[in-house]
Amino acid sequence: MGEWEPTWSTRAAEEAEAVAAIPCSGHGRAYLDGLILKDMNKSRCECNSCYAGSDCSQFLSDCPANADGGDPYFMEPFWMQHAASSAILVSGWHRMSYSYSDGSVISQLLVEYIKKVHGIVGNAITEGKYIVFGSGSTQLLNAAVYALSPDPSMSPAKVVATAPYYPLYREQTQFFNSRDFSYEGDTSLWKNNTNSSFRFIEFVTSPNNPDGKLNKGILKGSDVKTIYDRAYYWPHFTAIPSPADDDLMLFSISKLTGHAGSRFGWAIIKDEAVYQKMMIYLRLSAMGVSRDVQLRVLKLLDVATEGDGKEIFQFTYSTMRDRWIRLKQIIYKSKRFSLQKLSPQYCTFFKRVRDPSPAYAWLKCERQQDMNCYETLKAAGIIGRKGSNFSADERYVRLSLIKSQDDFEILTNKLRSLVAKEWESNPASI
Amino acid sequence: MGEWEPTWSTRAAEEAEAVAAIPCSGHGRAYLDGLILKDMNKSRCECNSCYAGSDCSQFLSDCPANADGGDPYFMEPFWMQHAASSAILVSGWHRMSYSYSDGSVISQLLVEYIKKVHGIVGNAITEGKYIVFGSGSTQLLNAAVYALSPDPSMSPAKVVATAPYYPLYREQTQFFNSRDFSYEGDTSLWKNNTNSSFRFIEFVTSPNNPDGKLNKGILKGSDVKTIYDRAYYWPHFTAIPSPADDDLMLFSISKLTGHAGSRFGWAIIKDEAVYQKMMIYLRLSAMGVSRDVQLRVLKLLDVATEGDGKEIFQFTYSTMRDRWIRLKQIIYKSKRFSLQKLSPQYCTFFKRVRDPSPAYAWLKCERQQDMNCYETLKAAGIIGRKGSNFSADERYVRLSLIKSQDDFEILTNKLRSLVAKEWESNPASI
Repeated sequence: MGEWEPTWSTRAAEEAEAVAAIPCSGHGRAYLDGLILKDMNKSRCECNSCYAGSDCSQFLSDCPANADGGDPYFMEPFWMQHAASSAILVSGWHRMSYSYSDGSVISQLLVEYIKKVHGIVGNAITEGKYIVFGSGSTQLLNAAVYALSPDPSMSPAKVVATAPYYPLYREQTQFFNSRDFSYEGDTSLWKNNTNSSFRFIEFVTSPNNPDGKLNKGILKGSDVKTIYDRAYYWPHFTAIPSPADDDLMLFSISKLTGHAGSRFGWAIIKDEAVYQKMMIYLRLSAMGVSRDVQLRVLKLLDVATEGDGKEIFQFTYSTMRDRWIRLKQIIYKSKRFSLQKLSPQYCTFFKRVRDPSPAYAWLKCERQQDMNCYETLKAAGIIGRKGSNFSADERYVRLSLIKSQDDFEILTNKLRSLVAKEWESNPASI
Repeated sequence: MGEWEPTWSTRAAEEAEAVAAIPCSGHGRAYLDGLILKDMNKSRCECNSCYAGSDCSQFLSDCPANADGGDPYFMEPFWMQHAASSAILVSGWHRMSYSYSDGSVISQLLVEYIKKVHGIVGNAITEGKYIVFGSGSTQLLNAAVYALSPDPSMSPAKVVATAPYYPLYREQTQFFNSRDFSYEGDTSLWKNNTNSSFRFIEFVTSPNNPDGKLNKGILKGSDVKTIYDRAYYWPHFTAIPSPADDDLMLFSISKLTGHAGSRFGWAIIKDEAVYQKMMIYLRLSAMGVSRDVQLRVLKLLDVATEGDGKEIFQFTYSTMRDRWIRLKQIIYKSKRFSLQKLSPQYCTFFKRVRDPSPAYAWLKCERQQDMNCYETLKAAGIIGRKGSNFSADERYVRLSLIKSQDDFEILTNKLRSLVAKEWESNPASI
């Protein structure tokens, strides 16, 4: 860096390097907001599940595998490997205003970066479309429902989704209890009803959470509006058969770069009136997304799009593919458990047929007596997420594959033991 | 710093210092998210109103004074003076999880800092109370309305506020169009109605936006719930007669440290059930506030509470007091315009009687023919915010006093000319 001498930045840089240098045995990490308190007596390592001790070196052997939740820690090593390019130093006077210099609450520069990453991946068409930001796609789900609801003089919109589906669609719609819309159950109930005068809002998750299927909208008709939750439509989790060109698509930084804690998502919108309504929602509910978050996301996307923009996706795909292969090898030996069927598919991003690499296993308990699959797994020390959470049968459980490598190793160990017991108890079935 | 040698932090530190060193003639500033694009041909200074040119050195003399909006740039010099202690270096892997290690989306460390600053100032009692975070107090306003609404089996809550009031209370309540509550106009309409079976939710802003009055709730009764918007209850803007101890109080970093763009607010809540309901709202609407934002706010409060914690308030009070004195000196000479009456008052923080120092001037046009005060000012090159925005008479206009020093200077120059014209056109009245 030649002649450059730091002045006011030294203290922040030193604090950040000091905290990054705290050894947590590779089974945890220390964070800056643990250091600021200056309480040196407290342990500052935050350990992965089943690890303990002030340096996370102690393995708790009778600890259950936690495969609940969607923390995308599988990407953490990528960011540690790119420490220099992904770090950002925020000054005390950074962007104190309510708006950017163009009067907007949306960084146009960040919009450009988002378009760039979609262009590199080829997973969404952004040309001629509008982009808005939310506090995670979470906030945008509800903003979209409001924007797609008819005006109050008409009947409330009927909001539907197809099981198994992400429960927040229902929970949010019911919680806000608006006169403009109501949750009306599974899409299948309304399949033959589209000639009615109702406005329908159909949630479609593609790839689907929990099962990774590339779902499509079911309802058709002029008064059907579809919200495509595309959070998982990245090469990490699926082949990209073609760029998505839906009227309203939602994405999230959580599932692109792994930064769930940053709470940043975006919507890509075809119709200007819908865009305007979502902007009103975002202004009235929170006055837009924090400028600090927009700055951080800009930096992360700057790293993600470096060079030919392929490195991050090679990392994520190879990690997720390896996990899926290892999981399949275990479950393949079982008659008691099965996984969702996913096939290799041509990917326009990698320009070849590629293996599946879903974010979640959608595990089924096949035995008659294992009606509650969650409890079956729990008894074997595996915490999943109940099928009923996704409005599906209790024979299903979602297991998260996107957590830390430690979590994945513990999960596979527990599953291997469980499947091995199946043979022991019934050796004739092998 | 002795032996310490930076490694991976150097690039981020260098970028931040480079952008901070860009000279914008003291009439603008450059930001890091202008540099990342690496487009060196573009001007990177973002100039204050009425300044232009690549280094903001060009004064646009026929430019109107913009006293609309509430950007708290008056605090920017404080943060520039505290560059080293307020800077923060965020690593690429900082807090990727949905939650902190205790499973919460709220940093307990930040809760401690918030309690500490209230303890220093003595403006709110936090002991034994619950604290939740939102994307600005904006998000918490609506969360509070939901939490205080009765269950759906009862009639919707009636949401009210007393003019002049901050319009977002009405706009949000109407926009969400919930079956649980509805906006029912000015509090005065319901003053004699409290024996009814209705649940009332009264918004009280204290000090009030726009007029700086230390308002109190008007409705009384067991089924009246009050939301105290305490955003301006800091020594910057008012004497602190005693610590507020209301059931539900809202605060915002925007009006404490000036970081409106960070979108961070907090609620202090007495009742556990209300706290739990607000937490549900915040989880379902956005899964909590960004961890990046919580880290930044922690750092800002670390600086604000340094030493005896008085320095920041001495800066803000002396800035705002000087502005109010200068404004009063101008308007004092006028018969055409008047300001709200505010008196010196004993302040428990400064331990003495202190002058008023409101965030906004609530200007009234006194002449019969100046019925639309906004237009009167606009004709003289002053952009305020219309009285009707606050559900008040058009004879009133809000002028922001919390913007940059440049904005304030331009405003006072325009006002001085306007008042001088009053004498010229009617010298006998002097």
